[in-house]
Amino acid sequence: MRKVITNGTVVTADQTVAADLLIEEEKIVAMSAPRSHNWLEGASTVIDATGKYVVPGGVDVHTHFELPFGGTFVSDSFETGTRAAAFGGTTTVVDFAVQVKGQSVRYGFEAWMAKADGNCAIDYGFHMIVGDINESSLKEMAAMVGEGVTSFKLFMAYPGVLYSNDGEIFRAMQQAAIDGTTIMMHAENGIAIDVLREQAVQRGETDPKYHSITRPPSTESEAVHRAITFAELAGSPLYIVHMSAKEAVSELTHARDRGLNVFGETCPQYLHLSVEDHVSLPGFEGAKYVCSTPIRFKAEGHQDHLWNALARGDLQVVSTDHACFFYDDDEQLGRQKRLGEGNFTLIPNGLPGVEERFNVMYQSGVVGGRFDINRWVDLIATAPAKMFGLYPRKGTIAVGSDADLVVYDPQASFTYSAPGSIHGNIDYTCYEGMEINAKIDKVLSRGRLIVDGDRYVGSRGDGKYLERGLSQMLI
Amino acid sequence: MRKVITNGTVVTADQTVAADLLIEEEKIVAMSAPRSHNWLEGASTVIDATGKYVVPGGVDVHTHFELPFGGTFVSDSFETGTRAAAFGGTTTVVDFAVQVKGQSVRYGFEAWMAKADGNCAIDYGFHMIVGDINESSLKEMAAMVGEGVTSFKLFMAYPGVLYSNDGEIFRAMQQAAIDGTTIMMHAENGIAIDVLREQAVQRGETDPKYHSITRPPSTESEAVHRAITFAELAGSPLYIVHMSAKEAVSELTHARDRGLNVFGETCPQYLHLSVEDHVSLPGFEGAKYVCSTPIRFKAEGHQDHLWNALARGDLQVVSTDHACFFYDDDEQLGRQKRLGEGNFTLIPNGLPGVEERFNVMYQSGVVGGRFDINRWVDLIATAPAKMFGLYPRKGTIAVGSDADLVVYDPQASFTYSAPGSIHGNIDYTCYEGMEINAKIDKVLSRGRLIVDGDRYVGSRGDGKYLERGLSQMLI
Amino acid sequence: MRKVITNGTVVTADQTVAADLLIEEEKIVAMSAPRSHNWLEGASTVIDATGKYVVPGGVDVHTHFELPFGGTFVSDSFETGTRAAAFGGTTTVVDFAVQVKGQSVRYGFEAWMAKADGNCAIDYGFHMIVGDINESSLKEMAAMVGEGVTSFKLFMAYPGVLYSNDGEIFRAMQQAAIDGTTIMMHAENGIAIDVLREQAVQRGETDPKYHSITRPPSTESEAVHRAITFAELAGSPLYIVHMSAKEAVSELTHARDRGLNVFGETCPQYLHLSVEDHVSLPGFEGAKYVCSTPIRFKAEGHQDHLWNALARGDLQVVSTDHACFFYDDDEQLGRQKRLGEGNFTLIPNGLPGVEERFNVMYQSGVVGGRFDINRWVDLIATAPAKMFGLYPRKGTIAVGSDADLVVYDPQASFTYSAPGSIHGNIDYTCYEGMEINAKIDKVLSRGRLIVDGDRYVGSRGDGKYLERGLSQMLI
Amino acid sequence: MRKVITNGTVVTADQTVAADLLIEEEKIVAMSAPRSHNWLEGASTVIDATGKYVVPGGVDVHTHFELPFGGTFVSDSFETGTRAAAFGGTTTVVDFAVQVKGQSVRYGFEAWMAKADGNCAIDYGFHMIVGDINESSLKEMAAMVGEGVTSFKLFMAYPGVLYSNDGEIFRAMQQAAIDGTTIMMHAENGIAIDVLREQAVQRGETDPKYHSITRPPSTESEAVHRAITFAELAGSPLYIVHMSAKEAVSELTHARDRGLNVFGETCPQYLHLSVEDHVSLPGFEGAKYVCSTPIRFKAEGHQDHLWNALARGDLQVVSTDHACFFYDDDEQLGRQKRLGEGNFTLIPNGLPGVEERFNVMYQSGVVGGRFDINRWVDLIATAPAKMFGLYPRKGTIAVGSDADLVVYDPQASFTYSAPGSIHGNIDYTCYEGMEINAKIDKVLSRGRLIVDGDRYVGSRGDGKYLERGLSQMLI
Repeated sequence: MRKVITNGTVVTADQTVAADLLIEEEKIVAMSAPRSHNWLEGASTVIDATGKYVVPGGVDVHTHFELPFGGTFVSDSFETGTRAAAFGGTTTVVDFAVQVKGQSVRYGFEAWMAKADGNCAIDYGFHMIVGDINESSLKEMAAMVGEGVTSFKLFMAYPGVLYSNDGEIFRAMQQAAIDGTTIMMHAENGIAIDVLREQAVQRGETDPKYHSITRPPSTESEAVHRAITFAELAGSPLYIVHMSAKEAVSELTHARDRGLNVFGETCPQYLHLSVEDHVSLPGFEGAKYVCSTPIRFKAEGHQDHLWNALARGDLQVVSTDHACFFYDDDEQLGRQKRLGEGNFTLIPNGLPGVEERFNVMYQSGVVGGRFDINRWVDLIATAPAKMFGLYPRKGTIAVGSDADLVVYDPQASFTYSAPGSIHGNIDYTCYEGMEINAKIDKVLSRGRLIVDGDRYVGSRGDGKYLERGLSQMLI
Repeated sequence: MRKVITNGTVVTADQTVAADLLIEEEKIVAMSAPRSHNWLEGASTVIDATGKYVVPGGVDVHTHFELPFGGTFVSDSFETGTRAAAFGGTTTVVDFAVQVKGQSVRYGFEAWMAKADGNCAIDYGFHMIVGDINESSLKEMAAMVGEGVTSFKLFMAYPGVLYSNDGEIFRAMQQAAIDGTTIMMHAENGIAIDVLREQAVQRGETDPKYHSITRPPSTESEAVHRAITFAELAGSPLYIVHMSAKEAVSELTHARDRGLNVFGETCPQYLHLSVEDHVSLPGFEGAKYVCSTPIRFKAEGHQDHLWNALARGDLQVVSTDHACFFYDDDEQLGRQKRLGEGNFTLIPNGLPGVEERFNVMYQSGVVGGRFDINRWVDLIATAPAKMFGLYPRKGTIAVGSDADLVVYDPQASFTYSAPGSIHGNIDYTCYEGMEINAKIDKVLSRGRLIVDGDRYVGSRGDGKYLERGLSQMLI
Repeated sequence: MRKVITNGTVVTADQTVAADLLIEEEKIVAMSAPRSHNWLEGASTVIDATGKYVVPGGVDVHTHFELPFGGTFVSDSFETGTRAAAFGGTTTVVDFAVQVKGQSVRYGFEAWMAKADGNCAIDYGFHMIVGDINESSLKEMAAMVGEGVTSFKLFMAYPGVLYSNDGEIFRAMQQAAIDGTTIMMHAENGIAIDVLREQAVQRGETDPKYHSITRPPSTESEAVHRAITFAELAGSPLYIVHMSAKEAVSELTHARDRGLNVFGETCPQYLHLSVEDHVSLPGFEGAKYVCSTPIRFKAEGHQDHLWNALARGDLQVVSTDHACFFYDDDEQLGRQKRLGEGNFTLIPNGLPGVEERFNVMYQSGVVGGRFDINRWVDLIATAPAKMFGLYPRKGTIAVGSDADLVVYDPQASFTYSAPGSIHGNIDYTCYEGMEINAKIDKVLSRGRLIVDGDRYVGSRGDGKYLERGLSQMLI
Repeated sequence: MRKVITNGTVVTADQTVAADLLIEEEKIVAMSAPRSHNWLEGASTVIDATGKYVVPGGVDVHTHFELPFGGTFVSDSFETGTRAAAFGGTTTVVDFAVQVKGQSVRYGFEAWMAKADGNCAIDYGFHMIVGDINESSLKEMAAMVGEGVTSFKLFMAYPGVLYSNDGEIFRAMQQAAIDGTTIMMHAENGIAIDVLREQAVQRGETDPKYHSITRPPSTESEAVHRAITFAELAGSPLYIVHMSAKEAVSELTHARDRGLNVFGETCPQYLHLSVEDHVSLPGFEGAKYVCSTPIRFKAEGHQDHLWNALARGDLQVVSTDHACFFYDDDEQLGRQKRLGEGNFTLIPNGLPGVEERFNVMYQSGVVGGRFDINRWVDLIATAPAKMFGLYPRKGTIAVGSDADLVVYDPQASFTYSAPGSIHGNIDYTCYEGMEINAKIDKVLSRGRLIVDGDRYVGSRGDGKYLERGLSQMLI
């Protein structure tokens, strides 16, 4: 069972080199100058990557499959979602198990383990959303490290649902400081936002765009500032999810300048979509782009700030926050986005992206000249893997690493258009009409070919649960 | 009824000039070059201020008389407190009427009006503490402007007592923005502080100094940052009370640099006392200095930062937050500070200062070379009057202003020592042993002599309620 | 010789009050409630100011009369310039005597004293431009304090002419630190600017607008930063003249936040003119607006930043940098602005303003709602007087102050238009067509009426030299 | 000619992995899981690295060999200096060729090429010091790219010697912006410093410590700010050499936050030495530590700031600025450091370090817990190689890279002590007495063993000139 990928250009976060790869038993066991060894003899499989890049499979550390939200469920199951990810060159996801009020952390963890077990196309891990912080759940946070869960997400938004108050957040951070684990934060001041939402609805401002308008940038930057204050006081690592406002990124930058272990991710939707061009579309169309933190106004300059922060390293990760809902009513799931017709506060928050991230970031980032191909690999694979304790098993191409690989053809091209070019259980893509000047040729997960051209050749359940270690990004 | 003050050096925030003052019917009606008019003829009273300063009576915009707190009452009544103020050269106070949960704002206002009525030695106004923000109390905030109440205080500390959450704060600020009124903020993250307090007590850390330790600077600066965010979003003026941490002042400075209408006061205790020298005193002595925001560590450099901010204008006001409790059990009031022996969380928060502020700020500020005498007048009289809509009736010496005047002798001196040099209903002073190189010679309130040397020559009830206008400091 | 101004509204930096003023022997000797004294009896002159403001005469601390520059002379002499100032409500100017290379400081001082002597309509002082810093001139700086010269201007621009290098600047600041005097700085990196100018001309970019383009904002902000560095190191007060770039003001703000004695002025031209609307006018018209620092691009947002800095106090003074040159050839002076036709580097730098400042700042500042009338008085009279050691003799209305007063009618109005409404020796105004909703009714200089309506009723030589003290703005 | 390094732990900036390396013809041609291939058969050399790290050879991008300075020459020739480097695990140096006033750039380049040719133990490249910027030398800067020189150093210090004025600097940056080359800057305000030096000497302050005292931190931070301003205006990459002041690093941080291509190095001397402990040593001993920028005061907190900046990435490179002079008179070179006895301004600036950098940074950085071993490799090898266009040929361990390798034994240890443990032509080490908890076992340069234990086994002239490409760090 030896496989060889030959004649390709191996690209990692650190280098671009012509090299052959030798794969044995799920791992990369050797790299060599092209054809410098007679590895092809006796190889069970030889992939000729001439003219192509060989890059690490993508690592998406922010997905939501089978999540109940807003009176419905996200439409992608672990089966459909991870298969879509695979089609999109992503070979690892870290999803979120959820503890809700009144249940134990472990109960939530086991429930999500059961949902995923035997269904995934690619390897997967779990963060835990801790929705009920108390003496008992704090102890469980420590215990979860033994299960390979080393990051815990809290919400400063969504009062009455997943919201934690400042005392709960602070206690959780104290616990994380002891355990060396990472607190992930949905940083928006949900209390102030709820005032704005209620007032908007009272004024009859019910269109989707008011979702963005009632979550102004300072409600994000304030929460980031507050979360950083607590993390510094508690001494815990902090990772801010789905950052969209430039003011919020500035808070992160200042904290990093002071040497704190604080990190941030953004998502392709914040880099490509705007209120002007998407959320304000006539009719109810804007509902497709309702997510939190919200899509922001192009005129305010957030996108350039985010791209710059990615290029210079002030944001470390691009994930998706994939959480999709059908725009048009679905036979099985019924009303999803349309629950909010006439009242934007009832639109389920979230949008698809797990399949598009890899390609879209290559196109806008590398082809678009925002950063080089190594930084692209870093943002979509290497840094996420390091951030959440999966490196160097995942996220790079190195001797000893899992053979999670994408053969990527920069000569080919295609255009995103739903439903044709989309493989998830969803009826739209946020990148409709976007041309990508490259194409995924092959995807390997632990050495097994799972996507070959346009065909899925893997099997449900190929993906295994990943016990993660502590973050490898800490200074 | 004409009075003349002659041969003195008149000092205001703006000038130092040799001039005579003519007083008629409570007002200053003329100023002239010394002895340039024959005003002395026909004058009912002539005060010879040769060699002395004539300065505006102090304006202390942060006092608490007859306030219930921590299971007891502050020990100074409106009678004793305002008389102590008069002895200390302060001729105007603005105290806080309190709305508590379940009561109306007006109820609280009238209750405090009743407490003060007929008891005060000097003129007084009221801010309102709004402890229960809802549709009804928001409307009452607007209505209170008609009663001369134009500033409303909220608490980000003291959860379960006077605490308002972020939504309540934001709503109150929206209301203030409509009315042009000012939000005053006790800016400390009380939720996080309560976690630290509980943990300290659990660890047996019960001495007074843990009061300071469990309120670290970032719990103040975080709250200031958050309050500024809301004020900017709502468009309301904001005034941060009793600032003590340099990090908090920096947040204020940055917001002011951006042109926001945000303001700050500090108090003499933060400029003179420290954890090292006062709150950490052996035994229970440190309880005298327990107040919130807390006295801070000298080694962290807060005092120099505060003095500098006063000198350069980033802090605008010096008030006292006068709220005193007997250190030793009092015959009438029983246990006060000593309620917290063995558990610092039970120590009533607060300390005396209304009598000392005028002198102590002159000594450390002017004699100590921190700023000049005009800036001293500004900080203790003019700016507070402008800040809270009392100018130019109070806070300055000008044609048409109330004749609230202090004849101040910079040749004399005395030393603070309780009980001898203290006139309030309290058994200690925070400035025990401090020498003051000046002495109040005479105090006039609306033209009436109320303090003459060491004697109180006024009458209970001389002081009248002041209907205040909107802030005169807004840009 | 008693004069009374009665029934007016007296406005100072600090107050707005209905009051009568009594003037004796050049001084204000008393203020009183309106008509509360029978001052009118026996008064030699009574001015009825009913419905009008009585404000301090303006203090313009940055004018250039009879200055040789760029191969010609500024067109206003001390006679014409100070008379124009008087027409515009300004009763004090501080001009610049110039030491050039090879001459002594005293020689320059005496030369300028001679130019002014017997010619001025209003009182005047001198700063010294020190154009040749060496052991001898440093000693002369100390000696000039005895002559009433307490501020010394240096140039970081104009290499080869008035330019001082970093070492010379630093030495002068060390001297100022010893003497307590103030360094005034033309802060532009003239060395870098000269590279840009030469390159522009080589490219054939010779229109007036290239004057602005070749002096980009960072050439100003860099110089401000450098000057502040040296001032902090030397321990000297620093005053940056004619600030126009928002980035430069930000440097000042940050330094002031740190408590340094650094100050800044801007001028009406930077608040009203732009490259887009003025310097880019077709033909050679833009030459009228060529000055240094340059008029900047409106689109970059400098004007709002400057207005905000004036309102909040980060800029302290509005002066004019009055230095005018005829746009069209003058019979006596010949070619002035037109020297630079075909080559912007030959356009004499400077423009008129000493007459318009008072009115224009009232209109845009007070009527336009940028700040209140007291702040206007502060910016154009009080703060400049304090800044350069003339207070309270000049810049305010107080017992003992010089009776330099303007009776200002806010009911009248007029429109600026050259030559009709202009009194200086110049053929244009930068504010052509601007309506002013107020009108100067009377101007008094040391109690003498010098402007009455549209007539000049003073005499050449009325103005006296002012020996100035050290700055009164230092903290 | 196949060589194998087996059983070691391969450490790069990106990974730590157990792997064997196969070397053929100067290059690394393959990496594999340990002993997974039968590479040892037929290998000409097998190095057993069991228990040891295999790391990239160090890249020191700031050395001065055979440089004339201060009336003498640095004591290390290319022969002795590069051999010392090799002993210290450094396999690449980038030295500085010098153009002086009146000569061409090419002349300087060829002179230094001749000095190095045939003498070096390791590979070497050149930056150019451009000491005479004019039309001709600007053109030569462009031409030098063809010779593999892509970085040009300017001096804001040393007026009259290598100093360039602001206009020259700006012109050179404009040229660099066109060519894509990098400007390296000695950022100190030499003009202001010369004033301080002259004044100190006049006061009789002649001890070595006054070298540090007369170069205060703000003379460095000012220059950094100014250089950044010009680089931003010109659009050129900028690299600040030998940063020592925290204020200067803050300027760099702020510029990087804005997304500029500005970079900084520090050197081991700034991380380990202080005025208090070294430059102030009694007698003339402090002269050993006289270099520019200077060693700074420990009490001011620079070292912690520098370490933090290295850990978090705000400083990218650790080089040495190796420029050594004998402390005691040398038989051949005569007086060196002692030229400055009695007058610190005559002490030649510079100190040794090329041999110690690798070990000292490992000890204080990795053993001392400032950062992990991958960051150490990055700082001393990978980032310098990327910064100056040598990557991935130098600075990493990858298929296709030069086999410049160090086998490093973390079990061994030794103590620095001159002359015993020092191999350069110098009589002291700055790290006398410092214990290193690791030891260099073997050093390979392009596959050839040049250091084996304590023996030098290479040959003079083994090192080849490296034509460098443009910087690979730009965003």
